[in-house]
Amino acid sequence: MKISIDGLHKAFESRVRLGIMSVLSVNDRVDFNSLKDYLDVTDGNLASHLKALENEEFINLTKTFVGRKPNTQYFITPLGKKAFNDHLKTLEQLIKSQK
Amino acid sequence: MKISIDGLHKAFESRVRLGIMSVLSVNDRVDFNSLKDYLDVTDGNLASHLKALENEEFINLTKTFVGRKPNTQYFITPLGKKAFNDHLKTLEQLIKSQK
Repeated sequence: MKISIDGLHKAFESRVRLGIMSVLSVNDRVDFNSLKDYLDVTDGNLASHLKALENEEFINLTKTFVGRKPNTQYFITPLGKKAFNDHLKTLEQLIKSQK
Repeated sequence: MKISIDGLHKAFESRVRLGIMSVLSVNDRVDFNSLKDYLDVTDGNLASHLKALENEEFINLTKTFVGRKPNTQYFITPLGKKAFNDHLKTLEQLIKSQK
């Protein structure tokens, strides 16, 4: 027997990142504060995990202004969608192997 | 909507630890080298993750001798079993929320 943990992507090991990817894969665009509310994390914590996912090119962002206030919207990239789906499939297999 | 990442235990964020817990929850006792084979990791990497799970009291070990060779067997504790099951349940929910 060989446990297939190879299919698990290191970028998704953190639960905050799992959460970010989950939110962004079922919502087209989500701003920073909404992500914060969804995941119940601090600004700094969320920002660092968003940056890590952005560096992997799994998510991207648009910056606009609402009046004078900057508004940053995050969205999942096709690469991120594929990587996250592969990750979830591997997790699903791992869960099945436990039943 | 609130994504429930609270049920995900930090101790299981690493994929090697997910692998260790998976192997130990379906096998009574497993020695170091078998775990290494299962998971395809280096000695140092495996040892440090085993130690982390031992510190959480999620796994424990017995040391015996086979002839003159020391033999260390790892097994999951009831606490570890419960924590791992809760973790998998949360992952399962997260996967379901994506479908």
